[in-house]
Amino acid sequence: MSNEDFNKRLFKYFDDHQKDYIQRLGDAVRIPSVSAWPDHRSEVVRMVEWTKSLMEKLGVKVELADIGQQKLADGTKIKLPDVILGTYGNDKTKKNILVYGHLDVQPAQVSDGWDTEPFVLTEKHGKLFGRGSTDDKGPVISWLNVIEAYQTLNEPFPVNVKFVLESMEEYGSDGLEDLLKSLKNTFLSDVDYVVISDSYWLGKEKPCLQYGLRGICYFFIDVESSTKDLHSGVFGGTVHEAMTDLITIMSTLVDDQGRILINGMYDDVAPLSPAEEQLYSKITFDVSTYCSEAGVKKTIQTEKEKILMHRWRYPSLSLHGIQGAFDGCGCKTVIPRHVIGKFSIRIVPNMKISTVEKLVENHVKQIMKTRNSPNKVSVKLEHGGNYWVADPNNPQYVAARKATVAVHGIEPDLTREGGSIPITLTFQEQTGKSVLLLPIGASDDGAHSQNEKFDISNYMNGMKVMSAYFQEVAKL
Amino acid sequence: MSNEDFNKRLFKYFDDHQKDYIQRLGDAVRIPSVSAWPDHRSEVVRMVEWTKSLMEKLGVKVELADIGQQKLADGTKIKLPDVILGTYGNDKTKKNILVYGHLDVQPAQVSDGWDTEPFVLTEKHGKLFGRGSTDDKGPVISWLNVIEAYQTLNEPFPVNVKFVLESMEEYGSDGLEDLLKSLKNTFLSDVDYVVISDSYWLGKEKPCLQYGLRGICYFFIDVESSTKDLHSGVFGGTVHEAMTDLITIMSTLVDDQGRILINGMYDDVAPLSPAEEQLYSKITFDVSTYCSEAGVKKTIQTEKEKILMHRWRYPSLSLHGIQGAFDGCGCKTVIPRHVIGKFSIRIVPNMKISTVEKLVENHVKQIMKTRNSPNKVSVKLEHGGNYWVADPNNPQYVAARKATVAVHGIEPDLTREGGSIPITLTFQEQTGKSVLLLPIGASDDGAHSQNEKFDISNYMNGMKVMSAYFQEVAKL
Repeated sequence: MSNEDFNKRLFKYFDDHQKDYIQRLGDAVRIPSVSAWPDHRSEVVRMVEWTKSLMEKLGVKVELADIGQQKLADGTKIKLPDVILGTYGNDKTKKNILVYGHLDVQPAQVSDGWDTEPFVLTEKHGKLFGRGSTDDKGPVISWLNVIEAYQTLNEPFPVNVKFVLESMEEYGSDGLEDLLKSLKNTFLSDVDYVVISDSYWLGKEKPCLQYGLRGICYFFIDVESSTKDLHSGVFGGTVHEAMTDLITIMSTLVDDQGRILINGMYDDVAPLSPAEEQLYSKITFDVSTYCSEAGVKKTIQTEKEKILMHRWRYPSLSLHGIQGAFDGCGCKTVIPRHVIGKFSIRIVPNMKISTVEKLVENHVKQIMKTRNSPNKVSVKLEHGGNYWVADPNNPQYVAARKATVAVHGIEPDLTREGGSIPITLTFQEQTGKSVLLLPIGASDDGAHSQNEKFDISNYMNGMKVMSAYFQEVAKL
Repeated sequence: MSNEDFNKRLFKYFDDHQKDYIQRLGDAVRIPSVSAWPDHRSEVVRMVEWTKSLMEKLGVKVELADIGQQKLADGTKIKLPDVILGTYGNDKTKKNILVYGHLDVQPAQVSDGWDTEPFVLTEKHGKLFGRGSTDDKGPVISWLNVIEAYQTLNEPFPVNVKFVLESMEEYGSDGLEDLLKSLKNTFLSDVDYVVISDSYWLGKEKPCLQYGLRGICYFFIDVESSTKDLHSGVFGGTVHEAMTDLITIMSTLVDDQGRILINGMYDDVAPLSPAEEQLYSKITFDVSTYCSEAGVKKTIQTEKEKILMHRWRYPSLSLHGIQGAFDGCGCKTVIPRHVIGKFSIRIVPNMKISTVEKLVENHVKQIMKTRNSPNKVSVKLEHGGNYWVADPNNPQYVAARKATVAVHGIEPDLTREGGSIPITLTFQEQTGKSVLLLPIGASDDGAHSQNEKFDISNYMNGMKVMSAYFQEVAKL
């Protein structure tokens, strides 16, 4: 049977089994594997077990790698979820492809503003709503669905596949980097290519391949004023309130145009070359669609090229919130004793995490020097992940472009991504091989937002692209 | 039997029944009647029913007054808890004393930093720990215990008592003011004196009577940037984040010395007269005890007199927190779509709520004028309560001073309070009579804090002072 004939059968098989695939994703979404909630760790572990069981049913050899403990803010320690190391096939004549994905999800609750229960996969108008549907349970299950389809159709798999599936991605991939370093000369030694499907198209229609990611430095500013919360009626006006210090510090970080106000933060940013500048105009990107996806009236920048640059090649700073202050509805008249302000900086070539950390520390120190406050103030880099940039013309990217054309009939855009998958860089360093970001979800999927969703059509087409990708890299 | 002989018996009765009184308070604390949590409204209602049942057992005639509905932030409405109107005795030859108290409590959960379960009354070293123990379930139950003791000892009660017990005090006494206005010519028309036990001594040892309270203006600053939460990786650097606007506004409200930065906010504050200034030096107040109770290294002011003035006669501004931002532990990389900053201003003679509201609105408008942001920003006075000042030499205060001397053997300090019981002023206006604040709890009771407690000795002595107070006002 020719490759083309087989693909016809294969793609039809995918379409015919849509209902089963949706049910499988629903089973995964039902497990609230939120890595940021320590009290949900057992759910994360349940998700690991569920996936392991599915992989073993497909004949994937699975090993669970212990990656140690997580130290919580209060000093207690809990076990990190095991990382799944899977091996499918060991034919020495075939290429070895490493697939990375993650099984944990962002926090979610209906009260955040979801229209449906976040942990119940809900189909509406061809979209599958649920936390983790697109980030990253859908893509992970898609890789496994592809293996299953080959088996059912009795077709030899074109490559050997290795899996690294972690469950702390939404909390900075705690423990994974050390694990990968330890596997450099064993599990990772014979890997030919690494592929990751944990990002999104630039728009809703046109596929893309991504060759760059921003990094992230996530900071906690910790301010402690007293040994207990105080009543503002009794103590207001006489004590140095922790919130006053914290809010002041947080207000000095970024201006209304998104410009970071920390001294020196732009010094290491790579200058924009004329060649790079030209790349942006070719990309299909609609500003008004972007605005409506974000649900904003207007963006800071107005030109397409400027917007893309500020997503991909310039740093940004977001204020996420405050832990320990009054966060409920109503009118609590509390003076909180201990508050932790949270913000992050997205970093880009050629910024260094250690420099960013030092600049933030100096900035906070400078601000506190101008204040007459006895409160304990400290700043901590809670986690840091580097940026990453690849060559979009290397053979793996060319293979993925062919696979995309085979399914979608168009060349994918070559883009970057504003978010971080810090482990991308680690895979590149530990394997010494090309890493490809192969998104199958659309820009409006709302990873990390309320009403996260995964289009059924992208779920189906995603499996087809993944299959074609395996076939193309097999030929390299 | 002489009054002195009866009081010996009565006070011994109180001491002998200490265990029963603690158990009764424990039953009340076990009901988590948090008025700020709409989903706990049924618990508030349960607390009202519990109290009604106790009062009826003592022969108090109880009527439940419907005070309408509460409109929540999301537009839905829920029933406000009924206000208990109680009448005990109708002897035309006796004085009519109105007792006010509240049955609701501040929010509390172990994770806030409690050493014990907040809704389980826990005895340790002569103190009773639990949410509501001192604020205000302990004092409310004390008034009822006094009636019960008279009955058991077969002694005629010296006065008629009317009760107004509400259950929205910790949420701004929603609906109570309108109720009291409607009762002006009926339930309230024959009241001779109003007494409230819902405040605290200035220190831990010496009783006081309070003749002044600060008011409060509680503000919500509402900033909305988009229709959904966004991922900072995808959108950071290109959208106008709601948090950036909110944090900036909040940073312009108060400086590191507690001085309010809103233009004109001190214009109406009554100037300090030499006569008033002299009052402060007489009061027993230890700065280092105050610091250790607050759990702070040092206060903003260092002299005793200055600290008292800033608690009682100057306005203050506290930043309480932010609703809608990331408030959990961990590192969520969210750009929140809709955040509500919460702060309050404690107001003093002769500030006007309407002026304060206008000044805050103007201030926020001015700040936003300097910013280039398309976000929807609005400010709302969520609730306002006026300050209150009485004459500490009126007959009711003199009677309460005698009652205090009879139990404690010392003259109480005449003090003010930095907190708000806005309804105090309403009682004064609607009855046209003297209102007395008769605290029985100590300054370190921690109302509104973690580990709120009520000393057993103050519980017992409080009932004695209340009994002696009834005897003294009966003579007026």
